Amino acid sequence: MTTDSIDFTAAKPAGMTIYDWPTGPYPARVRIALAEKNLQAGVRFITVDLRKGEHKQPQHLARNYSGTLPVLELDDGTFIGECTAITEYLDALDGVPTLTGRTPREKGMIHMMSKRAELELLDAVSVYFHHATPGLGPDVEIYQNAEWGFRQRDKALRGMHYFDGVLRSRPFVAGEVFSMADITVIGGLIFAGLVKLPIPAECDALQAWYARMQERPSVRNRVTMSEPVKASV
Amino acid sequence: MTTDSIDFTAAKPAGMTIYDWPTGPYPARVRIALAEKNLQAGVRFITVDLRKGEHKQPQHLARNYSGTLPVLELDDGTFIGECTAITEYLDALDGVPTLTGRTPREKGMIHMMSKRAELELLDAVSVYFHHATPGLGPDVEIYQNAEWGFRQRDKALRGMHYFDGVLRSRPFVAGEVFSMADITVIGGLIFAGLVKLPIPAECDALQAWYARMQERPSVRNRVTMSEPVKASV
Repeated sequence: MTTDSIDFTAAKPAGMTIYDWPTGPYPARVRIALAEKNLQAGVRFITVDLRKGEHKQPQHLARNYSGTLPVLELDDGTFIGECTAITEYLDALDGVPTLTGRTPREKGMIHMMSKRAELELLDAVSVYFHHATPGLGPDVEIYQNAEWGFRQRDKALRGMHYFDGVLRSRPFVAGEVFSMADITVIGGLIFAGLVKLPIPAECDALQAWYARMQERPSVRNRVTMSEPVKASV
Repeated sequence: MTTDSIDFTAAKPAGMTIYDWPTGPYPARVRIALAEKNLQAGVRFITVDLRKGEHKQPQHLARNYSGTLPVLELDDGTFIGECTAITEYLDALDGVPTLTGRTPREKGMIHMMSKRAELELLDAVSVYFHHATPGLGPDVEIYQNAEWGFRQRDKALRGMHYFDGVLRSRPFVAGEVFSMADITVIGGLIFAGLVKLPIPAECDALQAWYARMQERPSVRNRVTMSEPVKASV
């Protein structure tokens, strides 16, 4: 099996379950990490319906206090939320970290750039979506602060210029190799696309890098990685 | 040398410089990590004056796009910002991680709980401070959104109840051993103390855990770890 042709009937040896929303930008981060580590065949995916607010209901809050997706469930019943944490888990499974760094300097750079991609892009776009657009609809968005949301939109646009500058001087977000930091920027640009915040035309290094990222099977096939299974929430 | 008696004249072999503010809650996270790893003698500390907004000026923004403290500078001139990233760097230096986890499950749990401590406590208190109190003063706080700030205050208080519940079932935030996740909650409670958000009386597990944390030399001596050196900004 290659990551280009996903075989849903393959054995699922790792006993992992992921609760997510197949097209979601945060779920994308873990789906891409899974495919980069070639672990997707070991995973059962369960859909939690964001549009119905299932992620804010008690059954999901018991999995993750913060009420976000994705959440990884291990075969001992442990729930691991937060994309960075799930990526750390997956990357350590085979003892050969490829996404989170091998040396102290790599680990520091990758974690810094991934967190920066959250702060300055992905999380900013998310706040814009949930606070200054209809978001997931009035039943889910029970509190909105539009002024804050628009400021975060502007922050995200500045963030795109920042990452454009970074990618003028190196091939990947945290240095010479693909890493978790690239995945986080990809998540940010997926979300930006969903809310119609295109990459500014002058950010051609970011545009070119994003086009290269789309060539990776992990990125291209992320949505079709899973058979749809409905959560029982 | 022990962490109980800090010898400023000790050799500084590691060639690390930390830009921070000695009493700051985020700087505390790195200072505690340094002391837990017994690396503080190798570090030169440079003070960036938060009250004067030096962290938002060009010289500091060149070190860290996000304009936050602390920032670690390596002897090759690399700047590493973000507490989690700095902690990953420090914890990997000796090849014996004690703060960020040894097994995949430990890594996942520690990163999840540390991120949750940011989201639900430390970062929430920070937003409250900067948006719904005078914060660092009108010259630094050039935009405030008080409504958002008060919501974050309420979120932080809920967060304290959440961590109180966690600490009823295990001795440390992420499990059976002290980790980066404990340090992040400590940072949150330091900040909460500064802005007069005491731990609610009914959160007695959180109170008891925090009292135990104060007994650690790394926590007790964090402010006095460094000789004051003024930044040239």
